[in-house]
Amino acid sequence: MDFFKFIRDVPDFPKAGIIFKDITPLLGDGKAFSALIETFGKHYKDSGITRICGIESRGFIIGAALAAYMGVGFVPIRKAGKLPYEKIKREYSLEYGTDAIEMHSDAVNRGEKILLIDDLIATGGTALAAVSMLEDAGAEVVGVAFVIELEFLKGREKFGSRKLFSLLKY
Amino acid sequence: MDFFKFIRDVPDFPKAGIIFKDITPLLGDGKAFSALIETFGKHYKDSGITRICGIESRGFIIGAALAAYMGVGFVPIRKAGKLPYEKIKREYSLEYGTDAIEMHSDAVNRGEKILLIDDLIATGGTALAAVSMLEDAGAEVVGVAFVIELEFLKGREKFGSRKLFSLLKY
Repeated sequence: MDFFKFIRDVPDFPKAGIIFKDITPLLGDGKAFSALIETFGKHYKDSGITRICGIESRGFIIGAALAAYMGVGFVPIRKAGKLPYEKIKREYSLEYGTDAIEMHSDAVNRGEKILLIDDLIATGGTALAAVSMLEDAGAEVVGVAFVIELEFLKGREKFGSRKLFSLLKY
Repeated sequence: MDFFKFIRDVPDFPKAGIIFKDITPLLGDGKAFSALIETFGKHYKDSGITRICGIESRGFIIGAALAAYMGVGFVPIRKAGKLPYEKIKREYSLEYGTDAIEMHSDAVNRGEKILLIDDLIATGGTALAAVSMLEDAGAEVVGVAFVIELEFLKGREKFGSRKLFSLLKY
């Protein structure tokens, strides 16, 4: 399926000069959304993953749908302050200042094979913070997946030897 | 499956005196999460729904997984300011002040059968605002579904003759 035709360019969002890649037409089309999840499912079929971690909040949409499709658990990685139970926190740098993500401290087991997923990789800062947090918790991040990769931002280079997979490259 | 045993009570979150119903153990267990989505899927199998709308952000997890399971589209209903394209906005009252949700103005078609989903119904204010926004957009909301219903808060009464379905009642 040609997934590119379901991606909508929205100029000047969230701020002037940025062309936002809007995935809502892809999510909203039943056939396209199912085909998207199936494509990821096939890619990771023999990877042995037992849980999928999704980054708030568009990563929840892709990650949860894929987890149910594959019959594995789903773990939300959230902005700081949103999760109710005992947490692990990871701060990371933005262009100006810092941001932080959290996950429940009992969300993954030591040695467990994890797939991390988000809708889009730009500079890769948030996803790398999530990988690092998962690895510190003892999980093995066997894959990092995105629907869209903005290749010109070279976020991929941050991840070293870790296995990245993106479906739509710009 | 006994889904209740996967719900964790977290006292004093998000503020003192509130016992938060944490669904992350349910999401994190592959068998339980799959069984949850299958249960909703069977309930709405013959409903003719063509899209599922999920409310940010735990509603994304349940709604997107169910949409992929049923082969229908997924529409995110978000907090104000998060969606990039042309939007419909709906304000609603909180205990003190107001809040607002938005959806893309082209997200649903007139006459289309929609299922609205969120993880939990408390007083029902957010879900009712979403139903009202969808109905004003011309959609037919054939179901409103929740994993958890806090029955003692009587949120259900706000919805009149609309069909509510909740799996775990407290």
